[in-house]
Amino acid sequence: MGNSEIKHHADYVNFTATTTKQESLELLLESYKALSDSQDNWVCNLANCSSLLWHTYNNPSSSSSSEGQVNWSGFYVIDPQNPKQLILGPFMGKVACQQIQIGKGVCGTAALKKETQLVKDVEKFPGHIACDGETKSEIVVPILSVGDDGEKVLRGVLDIDCLKLEGFDETDQKFLEELCRLIGSSCKWN
Amino acid sequence: MGNSEIKHHADYVNFTATTTKQESLELLLESYKALSDSQDNWVCNLANCSSLLWHTYNNPSSSSSSEGQVNWSGFYVIDPQNPKQLILGPFMGKVACQQIQIGKGVCGTAALKKETQLVKDVEKFPGHIACDGETKSEIVVPILSVGDDGEKVLRGVLDIDCLKLEGFDETDQKFLEELCRLIGSSCKWN
Repeated sequence: MGNSEIKHHADYVNFTATTTKQESLELLLESYKALSDSQDNWVCNLANCSSLLWHTYNNPSSSSSSEGQVNWSGFYVIDPQNPKQLILGPFMGKVACQQIQIGKGVCGTAALKKETQLVKDVEKFPGHIACDGETKSEIVVPILSVGDDGEKVLRGVLDIDCLKLEGFDETDQKFLEELCRLIGSSCKWN
Repeated sequence: MGNSEIKHHADYVNFTATTTKQESLELLLESYKALSDSQDNWVCNLANCSSLLWHTYNNPSSSSSSEGQVNWSGFYVIDPQNPKQLILGPFMGKVACQQIQIGKGVCGTAALKKETQLVKDVEKFPGHIACDGETKSEIVVPILSVGDDGEKVLRGVLDIDCLKLEGFDETDQKFLEELCRLIGSSCKWN
């Protein structure tokens, strides 16, 4: 799907060709770049990115291991009123936990360590926080950007949940880390 | 679904009983009140509210006229960088238009007039902006809150799109206006 074919914004997630997971994830990066090209509002960009993620992973023509089984895709950001916790940002899926302490659960651990958490079975993750009891596996990727002092600052995390065990692998990790680098540098954070 | 039965946040949108549209919309208001009870972050509250709206309208046990046909539910807010336009906020559905000029399209008209726009056929609405060519009907409700000077200030709009003509009626309008009053007063707007 080239940009030349896009008539409506919704068409960004109308996948027509059968694609591999790698192709779907490449398209995801391309679409995010196009949408954030002249837009730095973080709420707007994360809202559209949640939709891109949801439709990429639930794309029926994709051969992803988590195909049709992603039940939540979205973001938690540093709470502006309390930097020791994450607060719910834009997402697709069922109603979610509003706050997560840095260091707690999968999201809080990714935020504390500033490292991706690729969790093939959430039941085996110590201190897992269940927003939805049906989630079986999860990937959480930190979002960092350069702060006023030139240091890398944690802005939030990308979180995707899957109804299947082992819903995500190292290919997902590679592309989602690249996406989070794009998000970190394309948004103005307040 | 009483709060006593809620084990996970996701359970807020697990409807189990066959309900009328009125009952579904009453439950929506109750759920929003519970979720915003000790939470005033507008991004967090609008994100969970988008999910409540999506699952309320796409609840298979509801007898709503738009049952299973809502293709977008979410919010546009006043752009902090340009108060003459709305910018995309949290939503559920396909990728959406990022900015809408106040006065343009259904959302922009609701924002300009500070009045609900109940549009039974979007093709007949002068200057309709199509984020998704499949949308047939739409309801947009303004969100107002009291500003620092005691005057009512427009914060944004709630927007729901439907794949069917006449997807919304005066019952939806009544409940969604009440929801927007709750949203206006429960959130801290920056």
